[in-house]
Amino acid sequence: MRGIGDDAAVVRGRAVCATSVDAMVEGVHFRLRAGWATPAQVGARALGGALSDLAAMGADPGEAYLVLGLPQGFGEAQALELVRGAQQLAQGVGVAILGGDVVSAPALTISVTAVGWAEDEQALIGRDGAQVGDLVGVTGALGGAGAGLAVLEGRATRGPHTGIIVDRVLHPTPRFAEGKALAQAGAHAMIDLSDGLATDAEHVGRASGVRLEIDLSALPIERGVAEVAGELGEPPWHLAAASGEDYELCVCVAPADRSSVERALRVAGGVGITWIGKATQADPGAAPGVALLEDGRERELEGFEHRW
Amino acid sequence: MRGIGDDAAVVRGRAVCATSVDAMVEGVHFRLRAGWATPAQVGARALGGALSDLAAMGADPGEAYLVLGLPQGFGEAQALELVRGAQQLAQGVGVAILGGDVVSAPALTISVTAVGWAEDEQALIGRDGAQVGDLVGVTGALGGAGAGLAVLEGRATRGPHTGIIVDRVLHPTPRFAEGKALAQAGAHAMIDLSDGLATDAEHVGRASGVRLEIDLSALPIERGVAEVAGELGEPPWHLAAASGEDYELCVCVAPADRSSVERALRVAGGVGITWIGKATQADPGAAPGVALLEDGRERELEGFEHRW
Repeated sequence: MRGIGDDAAVVRGRAVCATSVDAMVEGVHFRLRAGWATPAQVGARALGGALSDLAAMGADPGEAYLVLGLPQGFGEAQALELVRGAQQLAQGVGVAILGGDVVSAPALTISVTAVGWAEDEQALIGRDGAQVGDLVGVTGALGGAGAGLAVLEGRATRGPHTGIIVDRVLHPTPRFAEGKALAQAGAHAMIDLSDGLATDAEHVGRASGVRLEIDLSALPIERGVAEVAGELGEPPWHLAAASGEDYELCVCVAPADRSSVERALRVAGGVGITWIGKATQADPGAAPGVALLEDGRERELEGFEHRW
Repeated sequence: MRGIGDDAAVVRGRAVCATSVDAMVEGVHFRLRAGWATPAQVGARALGGALSDLAAMGADPGEAYLVLGLPQGFGEAQALELVRGAQQLAQGVGVAILGGDVVSAPALTISVTAVGWAEDEQALIGRDGAQVGDLVGVTGALGGAGAGLAVLEGRATRGPHTGIIVDRVLHPTPRFAEGKALAQAGAHAMIDLSDGLATDAEHVGRASGVRLEIDLSALPIERGVAEVAGELGEPPWHLAAASGEDYELCVCVAPADRSSVERALRVAGGVGITWIGKATQADPGAAPGVALLEDGRERELEGFEHRW
């Protein structure tokens, strides 16, 4: 297989190819100069976000391609460090970075193309298959990235769990093993939490034409999130539902598949699942989407924007 | 197959996948505000350049993904026009644009990921297979993009062939049919002329460990190039060899395959081939690469940079 250096990278194909593209721009999606993210961490974040999209379909990891737009003053050593950060994350999940392009740009820009593979199209799970009656689950724990960002930006103080939550911001982990296990166990719909549970669950609800009712008291909260939420003067579920970039998976499954889904995740050896709600009929005349419930009453959230 | 709107685009795979990524940044690779390129033309150029890399391997056209970085003041209508320009070019060569990302950026940035397919790896031709004794050929005609750029920038006046050469700048045509015909007819090495013949032939020579001797008097010159070259005070071969973005193919083939190559190109129905030199042993102790010969004497060229 040909790699970097020819007109195109060449890899052996499989039956079905899933491709995700993602871009991050300094000053919009991250602020390198604020000093709390190294070029290596920026590279890992950018790649992790693109790979997470593939994990959310149940695809096997494949290849990645990076386009770097480098501003004046961003030296070769920093660019290499950025690529190294991406490469480290790629190696950890079995992805090969096979090519890319480097151009001059007024601000540091990273575009990632991530490719995954599957043996047949039915093996891949979209956002649009949720059915009325489905259970809604999320992998792992939520709110860590939002809380970690608050610490990095100085809006909250450091505590015993700072390492964990800061890691959620700087080292996203695409949930490949979990995504594939969920797909194989019969998931109806799946999405990764890049924009935050409230926004991403709404994507699923709308695409599927159902309403996902989320019980806010059931959300699995990452360690250290409650302390940060206290400092910020908001309930922990707010960080868990409204802040993005946790890159956990939100999945809809038939109630009958609940125990086989839990078993599949145990076998896969990754993080577990928490059941946080159910898919219901959208109200007649109302748009499908999501409802965030606290003690049975619907709560509104402010929107979340990718920004750190 | 899933398209735009899910976490990733899903397509049926084939045995071998070739992927090329390419980025263009306003102020570096193009100047939209100078007024001689529309957003649609910028979109077509960006996609055409990425697809040309696939054509140069002999791959079948597949899919493309666009990442747009949009500056303030670049409105939605212009962005749609840009995508429409790319889509028109894609349709013409049988490529589907299946996804992408849109982000804010300080300057208009277009990153393209282009994917092609083949039935087996041997069907794809790299830059590194040229052999001593090979004939060197180029498809179509050269210098048009460089001459067209001179007209657009006001460095040369308009003439009867201005439409042709300006089209070479604004509507690049990836040579898919020609690339595949050349690959099937036994090409040893192939590259597309994005940086200019001098630079790209050198890439082939270096990758293959041979010296490509190019006869400058044999270069096929696009109509209208001689007039522009006259105004610029340089020989036509200079535009043909030094200016880039003609996106023709440069190919190395065994002398015994010459007539079958010519026949394959006629059957493919695209542009023809001109034989412009041969691959020789690199001088002992000297680096392999390219030699540009005029009346048997080697000529030096100034470097070419992607810039218009």
